[in-house]
Amino acid sequence: MLSVHLENGHVFVLDIPKPERPPGYALIRTLAAGICSTDLELQRGYYGFSGTPGHEFVGEVVEADDATLLNQRVAGEINLPCGNCSWCSRHLGRHCPHRTVLGIVKHPGAFQEFFTLPERNLHLIPDGIATESAVFIEPLAAACEILDQVRIPAGEKVAVLGDGKLGLLISQALHAHGAKVLQFGRHRDKLLIAARAGVETASVNATLPEAEFDFVVDATGTREGLSNAVRMVKPRGTVILKSTVHGEVAIDTAPVIVNEITLIGSRCGRFEPAMELLRLGTVRVDRLITDRFPLASAPEAFARAAEKGVLKVLLEGSRGA
Amino acid sequence: MLSVHLENGHVFVLDIPKPERPPGYALIRTLAAGICSTDLELQRGYYGFSGTPGHEFVGEVVEADDATLLNQRVAGEINLPCGNCSWCSRHLGRHCPHRTVLGIVKHPGAFQEFFTLPERNLHLIPDGIATESAVFIEPLAAACEILDQVRIPAGEKVAVLGDGKLGLLISQALHAHGAKVLQFGRHRDKLLIAARAGVETASVNATLPEAEFDFVVDATGTREGLSNAVRMVKPRGTVILKSTVHGEVAIDTAPVIVNEITLIGSRCGRFEPAMELLRLGTVRVDRLITDRFPLASAPEAFARAAEKGVLKVLLEGSRGA
Repeated sequence: MLSVHLENGHVFVLDIPKPERPPGYALIRTLAAGICSTDLELQRGYYGFSGTPGHEFVGEVVEADDATLLNQRVAGEINLPCGNCSWCSRHLGRHCPHRTVLGIVKHPGAFQEFFTLPERNLHLIPDGIATESAVFIEPLAAACEILDQVRIPAGEKVAVLGDGKLGLLISQALHAHGAKVLQFGRHRDKLLIAARAGVETASVNATLPEAEFDFVVDATGTREGLSNAVRMVKPRGTVILKSTVHGEVAIDTAPVIVNEITLIGSRCGRFEPAMELLRLGTVRVDRLITDRFPLASAPEAFARAAEKGVLKVLLEGSRGA
Repeated sequence: MLSVHLENGHVFVLDIPKPERPPGYALIRTLAAGICSTDLELQRGYYGFSGTPGHEFVGEVVEADDATLLNQRVAGEINLPCGNCSWCSRHLGRHCPHRTVLGIVKHPGAFQEFFTLPERNLHLIPDGIATESAVFIEPLAAACEILDQVRIPAGEKVAVLGDGKLGLLISQALHAHGAKVLQFGRHRDKLLIAARAGVETASVNATLPEAEFDFVVDATGTREGLSNAVRMVKPRGTVILKSTVHGEVAIDTAPVIVNEITLIGSRCGRFEPAMELLRLGTVRVDRLITDRFPLASAPEAFARAAEKGVLKVLLEGSRGA
């Protein structure tokens, strides 16, 4: 089968044997998978990664212990917890210190024709969600995680910094929740996607408002994002850190302390609210897809995804293989 | 009257007229006042300060609109809010954007024979608290602020990083609250003060435990403090930022995001719980006093306070002046 392999900054497509399915795992055929910023970072060699990436996927179950899964379209939680530790017993397997992570940490990802994942990680995709849209369940769940972490009252003014893929999902998810979102970005065309969804937008090149929001989400992926967020949040307000930057970020902690600001790191989320938003059509993701490539063209797909101004690039499996 | 004046890194003692008392303000005679790390930073010219510092004080009211205050010993909240804004209307005058701050921002401080403060800022000091101990009400209130911001269950393991003045107040306040405190520091003699109060202590030179605490307080005042705290806190745990460093601090935000850590800035607090801890003798502060000087010897007092290993240095007013 075809399998994408990252090594020393290069993207290879290899022909390797289909993986063995351990008990409790499903063997999944990849229908479509999204290239995420994390995948581009893995390619650049961050985290010392080599192997098969891919953690935003829609697949079809071809083998499983649970017969009800067979031939079903599924999305899947990316963390594979140990199941035995105190985190797992508290249903926080996403933070299990012994976990592996699909396509990121010691578990081969979805950028190949077939891969495996524990059956308990899988979610059946409702018929109302197109396969291309369902690829966004995982990143949209990460956007919705914010609402599981902080209580944002309906009507509350929230600033979202960054108009990349994640920023656009976050602004739509918070808007759907009822927050009064103001999204700041650099790209007129990307902000237009948010505006079409009803989100108010502003250029980050304008003078940023100071101490004006109770909640600010930093999804810029830039070194300046966090400092800007701290300046924009009110005293006693909350900054949600949603995007990483490789290496260290310089921050002046004095205003954080004097203004008693809360900074919250936010990562993966539950799939249920994301599936519901997609099923209802409250969050639209079709406009976020810039391009599509077959698995065999993964090197071109990665190059495309790294271009400026590009949003989501999909890798597509061969349907009837 | 004698008045301490900071200018360009120098400490002067001037002879100036007694201040006028505006309506609603008390005229206060300084009995004792503590030199805090912030005062040393003001001396170094941070925040462009020049003027009279001093915000940890015990005074005697000599003039006031409210006759019940006369001749009473008082401590005082250091923030002078405008009283008219949305912060003030929510009883969060400590964060009023128009506030002045005693001895820090545009309101002359307590390092002089007489100074003024709004009567509503004052707290009568119970007879059971010695004047020298009452100087610690303000910093102990800042320590207690943590318990107003985060819910720490009794018996919970909490790490306190730093064995300076504030660290020693924090560890004792959290210990009194019922937390199982482990305090990390560099100084055997300072840690001994915490140990005598029943706090478990450890040298920061040992290997620091990783991902072991649900709560970590950074009171180190060092650039490494925050990074160490992030390493020591469990996933989904909380780091409380209690001490500032001048300039920017470099932080790797990746573990904050991946482990969904919460960072909370923490500053001034309510005086009531601090006064109660001192009245009951649950927190002992006498061992934190290294030295005492009369107001006239403020230059020597500041020099002493800046020496390595020194804890609190007090400035004392002339009793019967």
